[in-house]
Amino acid sequence: MGLDEDVIQNITSANVACGFHAGDSLWMKRTVELAEQYNVALGAHPSYPDLKGFGRRNMNIDPAEVKADIIYQAGALSAFTSVKKLQHVKPHGAMYNQAVNDPDLAKSICEAILEFDENMILLALTGSKWVEIAQDMGLRVAKEVFADRAVNSDGTLVSRSNPGSVIHDSSEVIQRSLRMVQEGVIESVEGELVEVEADSICLHGDTPGAVELSKSLKEQFIKSDISILPLGQIV
Amino acid sequence: MGLDEDVIQNITSANVACGFHAGDSLWMKRTVELAEQYNVALGAHPSYPDLKGFGRRNMNIDPAEVKADIIYQAGALSAFTSVKKLQHVKPHGAMYNQAVNDPDLAKSICEAILEFDENMILLALTGSKWVEIAQDMGLRVAKEVFADRAVNSDGTLVSRSNPGSVIHDSSEVIQRSLRMVQEGVIESVEGELVEVEADSICLHGDTPGAVELSKSLKEQFIKSDISILPLGQIV
Amino acid sequence: MGLDEDVIQNITSANVACGFHAGDSLWMKRTVELAEQYNVALGAHPSYPDLKGFGRRNMNIDPAEVKADIIYQAGALSAFTSVKKLQHVKPHGAMYNQAVNDPDLAKSICEAILEFDENMILLALTGSKWVEIAQDMGLRVAKEVFADRAVNSDGTLVSRSNPGSVIHDSSEVIQRSLRMVQEGVIESVEGELVEVEADSICLHGDTPGAVELSKSLKEQFIKSDISILPLGQIV
Amino acid sequence: MGLDEDVIQNITSANVACGFHAGDSLWMKRTVELAEQYNVALGAHPSYPDLKGFGRRNMNIDPAEVKADIIYQAGALSAFTSVKKLQHVKPHGAMYNQAVNDPDLAKSICEAILEFDENMILLALTGSKWVEIAQDMGLRVAKEVFADRAVNSDGTLVSRSNPGSVIHDSSEVIQRSLRMVQEGVIESVEGELVEVEADSICLHGDTPGAVELSKSLKEQFIKSDISILPLGQIV
Repeated sequence: MGLDEDVIQNITSANVACGFHAGDSLWMKRTVELAEQYNVALGAHPSYPDLKGFGRRNMNIDPAEVKADIIYQAGALSAFTSVKKLQHVKPHGAMYNQAVNDPDLAKSICEAILEFDENMILLALTGSKWVEIAQDMGLRVAKEVFADRAVNSDGTLVSRSNPGSVIHDSSEVIQRSLRMVQEGVIESVEGELVEVEADSICLHGDTPGAVELSKSLKEQFIKSDISILPLGQIV
Repeated sequence: MGLDEDVIQNITSANVACGFHAGDSLWMKRTVELAEQYNVALGAHPSYPDLKGFGRRNMNIDPAEVKADIIYQAGALSAFTSVKKLQHVKPHGAMYNQAVNDPDLAKSICEAILEFDENMILLALTGSKWVEIAQDMGLRVAKEVFADRAVNSDGTLVSRSNPGSVIHDSSEVIQRSLRMVQEGVIESVEGELVEVEADSICLHGDTPGAVELSKSLKEQFIKSDISILPLGQIV
Repeated sequence: MGLDEDVIQNITSANVACGFHAGDSLWMKRTVELAEQYNVALGAHPSYPDLKGFGRRNMNIDPAEVKADIIYQAGALSAFTSVKKLQHVKPHGAMYNQAVNDPDLAKSICEAILEFDENMILLALTGSKWVEIAQDMGLRVAKEVFADRAVNSDGTLVSRSNPGSVIHDSSEVIQRSLRMVQEGVIESVEGELVEVEADSICLHGDTPGAVELSKSLKEQFIKSDISILPLGQIV
Repeated sequence: MGLDEDVIQNITSANVACGFHAGDSLWMKRTVELAEQYNVALGAHPSYPDLKGFGRRNMNIDPAEVKADIIYQAGALSAFTSVKKLQHVKPHGAMYNQAVNDPDLAKSICEAILEFDENMILLALTGSKWVEIAQDMGLRVAKEVFADRAVNSDGTLVSRSNPGSVIHDSSEVIQRSLRMVQEGVIESVEGELVEVEADSICLHGDTPGAVELSKSLKEQFIKSDISILPLGQIV
């Protein structure tokens, strides 16, 4: 869970675990302090209550409870910031993936954000019905793509339980990222080109090579005249 | 943990558990909604992380971590309020009792409150060193007495592990409460009169007879021309 | 969670929560001592790790982990018995319901039992594929019916999220129980008669009226010349 | 928490975390399988319920509950072994350190072991009152020393919160270990020679360099004609 000081210098927005799948109060406090020191915008990374499974296991939780869980986690994280506000919310793991396919869940997540702070931005999978639901509800949404994840031809992420779901070759990760931003397409596991709009590119701070990857990606973006801005200036 | 709708009509400030010793997100959300409906001011009731022991067991936690735990819990609760603010913080159980005797812990608790929101009020045991520490740090403090707890001659609470620590006779509870407010004294278990300043009287919402007791106490106070005000108007 | 001393005198087998959805070590120890005092046979009631949801929420957990979770919980409970052995295992809540429809999960549960103690009995829903899977694996199985739960025409339980899923009228509960045992049928919510084999009738110790219901049911069974025996003498 | 396959080849007894401070069911299952594969004897490493603090924080828990917690954890671990039995119990962290100074706690730990399996061995700090208490209760005790921990002149361990509490220089660790076994003495932080009886030497599997240290120590012991035997053959 180390949001490494080296990684944080190469990103503009950080998703911080809030204790339900990882992270604890002291780690959250230090991560927020580190992010503020480097002017990195902060977002909550709320999860189902599943420490044992790192929040990656589908759970069938009542949407009203998911909503309360998100408000709880976002509130807890925001308390560590100097302005008592967050830039965005990005649900973690199974909650994120289930929201892509479950409109009721998607709606509850959006309600939680609006109820906590109507100016907050939702980070949601580009091309998903979830993005539409959020926009219809008047929520600010940033469309998200994943630097190191394989995608299906319908634009959803290949499940982590499948081989090849995570791309480990960093030059491939960089090429795919550039293509998503510059050409608006990504190649699916079936070999088809999928159109994507990319407001935000997700990197995982806890994977080996995260520091180098974040640095290379930033350098390539700058070299290719791609501006890297905080979400608040885009959405 | 039911902060009963009937009890809530007889109090002016509620201490709400924040998930570390009791309570969960959905219950917190509903309790906040109920309190706001009856214009009852809200305070966080943070605890050590000890669900198994209901937060009543002394723990030797690093003060920096206690501080982070309090900010986390206060933030989580405040997120459910319509104004995203709390009136006060009252540590629960062992954290409260240890703070009475441990200046480092007391100081960390005060720092947590000041860091989260410097306008919040601390509820702390009347007559304790903790009250002085808080005042010296510039914190708003409400001095608290307990309606149904026996006290030692030094003004500390008789430990729950001792027989007679909780007074169950409601007319005795009411007499002691009136005397604390009107005469500024309470009789200790050793039979001595202890001077107390009482800004706030603590009732436990989860004990049998809580509804009747809260109602009788309120009636007796009104009958005795004692004004019952929110903490914010006193401190 | 009180496995009430009055209820325990009217049953022959107890399902004891093992800490994953309810119960803790001290409560388990006392419950085992109480059951042994009244010669009630003991079974583990393992659950998904979901204290917040009382184990009632479907979770998508790897079967290998479910297996390990069951062995862990059964081992923990058995340690409190005087013979360090259990009579049976009955999965709780969502784990039980998902096993009825998921052969892989059903198989993992059976493997867990066989690996821990091949003489233990599985309590599984009468008429389910799960019962067949267990029998094919050489496991001792007791077919279970529920005294107070409505059933669908395919023999599965009506989900707790549906109205009418739990029958609260005790005379109806008793009539349905007698009919299941004597005639081998139960009426579904759609009004159809469903054939059932009933080795064991499940009562919930934590519902209001549990004491009276268990007593009445026992009396009616005795009056109707139905023998009530420990599972080990039936299966 | 990786009980590394390389470390396990250099030890004769393993202490396995049981989920209260670290470890979960699946990891416990795999660790037991690995240990049995290399004929390493298994012991429970029960802890206070304190995942957040890795079991290292003093807690004031009722001895009856500590006893139940130990039986629970030992039972859970034993369920994964092929013989459903453990060789020993070694309390973890704060529970271990508090037992050295608290006779009531020490006694409860011994009672838990006797109640679960009267043949099990307790691992307790050499020279402590706890060892005497256990022996008086008829428990088999192995006197334990620590390879990499500094000791006070009264034989207790220097607290982890003090600098120098853990010795990182592996040649010093080896020299101290050899001296404890061969000469029966260890030098305290105050420079005094403390007499120690060493039945067992504790290594930490999760510290950097654990593999190399365990290998070197084993080699040095063999070279010095010190036999390394399972606890069961010594006590």
